[in-house]
Amino acid sequence: MGKYTIGLDFGTNSVRALLVDVASGEEMATSVWNYPHGQEGIILEDKNPHLARQHPADYVQGTTACVRDIIKQTEENISADDIIGIGVDTTGSTPMPVDESGEPLAFHDEFKDDPAAMAWLWKDHTAHAEAEEITKAASRLRPNYLAKCGGKYSSEWFWSKVLHCIRSRPKVYEAAYSWIELADWIPAVLTGTTQPDRLKRCICAAGHKAMFNPAWGGYADEEFLATLDDKLAKVRRTLPDKAHTIAEPAGKLTKEWAKNLGLQAGIPVAIGAFDAHLGAVGSGIKPGVLVKIIGTSTCDMMVWPLEKDLPDIPGLCGIVPESILPGFFGLEAGQSAVGDIFNWFVNQIQPGGANNGSHEALTKQAERLKPGQSGLLGLDWHNGNRTVLVDQRLTGLLVGITLATKPAEIYRALIESTAFGARVIVERFEQYGLNVNRIINCGGISAKNTLVMQIYADVIAKPLEISRSSQSCALGAAMAGAVVAGKQAGGYDTFGEAIEAMTAVRSQKFTPHPDKVKIYNRLYKLYRRLHDAFGTKAADGKLYEVMKELLSIREEVRS
Amino acid sequence: MGKYTIGLDFGTNSVRALLVDVASGEEMATSVWNYPHGQEGIILEDKNPHLARQHPADYVQGTTACVRDIIKQTEENISADDIIGIGVDTTGSTPMPVDESGEPLAFHDEFKDDPAAMAWLWKDHTAHAEAEEITKAASRLRPNYLAKCGGKYSSEWFWSKVLHCIRSRPKVYEAAYSWIELADWIPAVLTGTTQPDRLKRCICAAGHKAMFNPAWGGYADEEFLATLDDKLAKVRRTLPDKAHTIAEPAGKLTKEWAKNLGLQAGIPVAIGAFDAHLGAVGSGIKPGVLVKIIGTSTCDMMVWPLEKDLPDIPGLCGIVPESILPGFFGLEAGQSAVGDIFNWFVNQIQPGGANNGSHEALTKQAERLKPGQSGLLGLDWHNGNRTVLVDQRLTGLLVGITLATKPAEIYRALIESTAFGARVIVERFEQYGLNVNRIINCGGISAKNTLVMQIYADVIAKPLEISRSSQSCALGAAMAGAVVAGKQAGGYDTFGEAIEAMTAVRSQKFTPHPDKVKIYNRLYKLYRRLHDAFGTKAADGKLYEVMKELLSIREEVRS
Repeated sequence: MGKYTIGLDFGTNSVRALLVDVASGEEMATSVWNYPHGQEGIILEDKNPHLARQHPADYVQGTTACVRDIIKQTEENISADDIIGIGVDTTGSTPMPVDESGEPLAFHDEFKDDPAAMAWLWKDHTAHAEAEEITKAASRLRPNYLAKCGGKYSSEWFWSKVLHCIRSRPKVYEAAYSWIELADWIPAVLTGTTQPDRLKRCICAAGHKAMFNPAWGGYADEEFLATLDDKLAKVRRTLPDKAHTIAEPAGKLTKEWAKNLGLQAGIPVAIGAFDAHLGAVGSGIKPGVLVKIIGTSTCDMMVWPLEKDLPDIPGLCGIVPESILPGFFGLEAGQSAVGDIFNWFVNQIQPGGANNGSHEALTKQAERLKPGQSGLLGLDWHNGNRTVLVDQRLTGLLVGITLATKPAEIYRALIESTAFGARVIVERFEQYGLNVNRIINCGGISAKNTLVMQIYADVIAKPLEISRSSQSCALGAAMAGAVVAGKQAGGYDTFGEAIEAMTAVRSQKFTPHPDKVKIYNRLYKLYRRLHDAFGTKAADGKLYEVMKELLSIREEVRS
Repeated sequence: MGKYTIGLDFGTNSVRALLVDVASGEEMATSVWNYPHGQEGIILEDKNPHLARQHPADYVQGTTACVRDIIKQTEENISADDIIGIGVDTTGSTPMPVDESGEPLAFHDEFKDDPAAMAWLWKDHTAHAEAEEITKAASRLRPNYLAKCGGKYSSEWFWSKVLHCIRSRPKVYEAAYSWIELADWIPAVLTGTTQPDRLKRCICAAGHKAMFNPAWGGYADEEFLATLDDKLAKVRRTLPDKAHTIAEPAGKLTKEWAKNLGLQAGIPVAIGAFDAHLGAVGSGIKPGVLVKIIGTSTCDMMVWPLEKDLPDIPGLCGIVPESILPGFFGLEAGQSAVGDIFNWFVNQIQPGGANNGSHEALTKQAERLKPGQSGLLGLDWHNGNRTVLVDQRLTGLLVGITLATKPAEIYRALIESTAFGARVIVERFEQYGLNVNRIINCGGISAKNTLVMQIYADVIAKPLEISRSSQSCALGAAMAGAVVAGKQAGGYDTFGEAIEAMTAVRSQKFTPHPDKVKIYNRLYKLYRRLHDAFGTKAADGKLYEVMKELLSIREEVRS
């Protein structure tokens, strides 16, 4: 009789449940449930384009709906008794203010329509001023805090959002007892451990987004936070000294939830983690393997044994012990926009008249072009640069335009520019001693777009493999479920074993073509020149200021 | 009884005749005749995209057709006896190989289908290698030759084309007795003076395109030409020591042509000039006035009294005594692409899906944007840079692109980039002591496109006036006809008088808006940074090489 686990994957617009065979990683059933609140699950505000919230009721309702659905889909073949564990991945940093019992303030009548009382979705940028404030203070007082997050604290992260709530909605802040990350809250809900004093928080969210590090004794210290705002102390005091890895259970599934979902009570629910991190697990991450999740943006992850020395790597968004795999440092890099750039060209610019501007049409034409043939070269900073420049105040650039330049040439140049951006990340890893022996890709683009993948292989000059699962995040979550269940229950004792058994790559592989590599090496040198001139003060700084000043003028003029 | 003159304007695709009232400049009749040979009058070759030729038979046939047409249009009100002179403007450098009688080789049976025996149209770029060769030789042996043409000899010019004919079609070159510019050939045909030993050649073509300057005793010397190719001596020996201004007659209209056209025999035909130069005359050029012809590209002209000192101005395509007006230095600058860039975006990129990508739709949306609002900034080098960089190996650039960038924002940024390019030219003139007190614009864009003109006024920070005539080139030619006719015959003795009487500006004027000027001043500073970084070796040279290397790679890959 087989054993099974469930991966719950809380995305930006929907939640997915995946039922996985523990022995083989085979995906037995999947179910997706779209969040009903707001626009595609996101609560927006006309007057504030930076705002993006979610109603936590959607998470609860969605969990019930899609777990019940996979149970129903498989009830003829799989007994619910053979489902031995659950794992959870979510977006992040997506924190929400909660009361003393750990219930979101959005569940209180008083705040039920107040966006500040809901979950502050990862892509909420209302706290950009606070992020700068935190970065400034930390660079003066706690440079070590910044060293582990690429040198800049982001408006997307925990403390920026909490601080912005103090400033913008003090009433909500006053009513809150603590703030909980979505990745922590879901496992706590399922196991009845939401009460902040009992709650286990994950190292992944704590380390990457909330300035937590065992090296300095936990979260950002109270003294430092007080320099930002006295009121932060209240939340700080609810945060534990320890954070947990996905190898640990958050607790056991409560009777109420077991009944609700149709599962056995008491099965373990793993500590949560961010989607990208469990996606890396589901793609088979290990030392020497770079996992790239390529979609609208990318997340590029590696791991490194805890016992080996690891220097700070400038420009890397996050280096956190055990954030991806227990026993290893987790390293996270990424590109702020990839698929989003191609979508911008197709949907916003709408080139090629009535018939020649779809992704399909442009891809067909772009495939016929040789590297270098268009004479175009771009910088892929349409949404800023996450790694290695860690700078949102950067913009896209295209050079080499002539009166003969065609849409498909621009389309290909946009793809190539993101490939060069990807190569910068690979080189940065290798420069600091993390050799990239294999690259395993997952995410929508890797699964579907052979043009992009071949260009990436030719530009990065390494073979690219594709994760077998097209739902690696949910698969990784299910693997966490198998590990917290343990060998005795039919799962695994270690992630190494789980990865060996449950993950694989496709037979299809993208191999670099030597002639193309040669041309791309030359183009990459030029890309680096543009990259350094516009993205760093290393040169004479005259061009570094151009993008900044354009954005400043734009903001002045629009205000 | 009024007096009238005819301006004949030989354009790239057609010839125009304009009948003008000498007293007022009023345009009584106009007629356009499209060249029948090739594609829209241009003979092209699939295997050689640089090639662009014209059949000289089209010029002769077109002259007859359109002069007869204006005579016919006005026969009820105007007696042909009151038509007192003819002037001619043409494209250039458009030289053709001729026999001892001055007849084009293309009229010989042997060569009638041979493109090398036809007129080598200004935009023929087959001689790019020869242009480089000439530039190199001149910079070593005759730097003074280069100083007057902006430091580089162009593939579009006389000696490049003649040299390329020696190399590529020696048989045609051997059969030729001399080469004649179209601007010289038409007046010579009408006056029976085509025989090279009698032919009067115009200072305009000689000085701007054939290394002629009174200061060094005429055309490029034989010794210098021999270092390029011995065979050039043959043509050089047919060139006179003197060149002529448009105030001089090429001769008198022959009986045959008078009969053919329906005009009086013996009326004077003025020495020819290039279209842009007579366009400047037709727009009322004088010291302190910059005339800008704005169309697919621009030509920017000023004059300066011969008796005053004038330094070499780096980056100016041409400084030639009396090339525009007798008694003045003629200075010629220009932008390689203006309207062509807007057309590229609309016709080649075809943005905005099915409905929002026309010039009209984009203009409407772009008009609503404030300066700086898009955050975009461009370099207008899609077709290289004529002034002040004199470099065809430059390309367009766009920076400031975000995921929210819209087609109309790019459209406006393209317009603004050409406006910044225009300002560079104005500043270069003023930097060398030629104050620009007025700017008079003519050409298609100035007459029709108020968005472009207002942006130019705001960027250049000077009021812009528009020439009254929409056919300033033909008007300028007709004015030359009035001057060679002289006061006694009912014309004028000087161009000063002709300009006073026959030219005017529209009442409509584009006045800079102080708030917009302020923003554009800041954007212009950024434009200059990009301009200098990519267009000159002045900075560390690292970006200067980017555009060059992209073009080199492109050529390698395509070959």
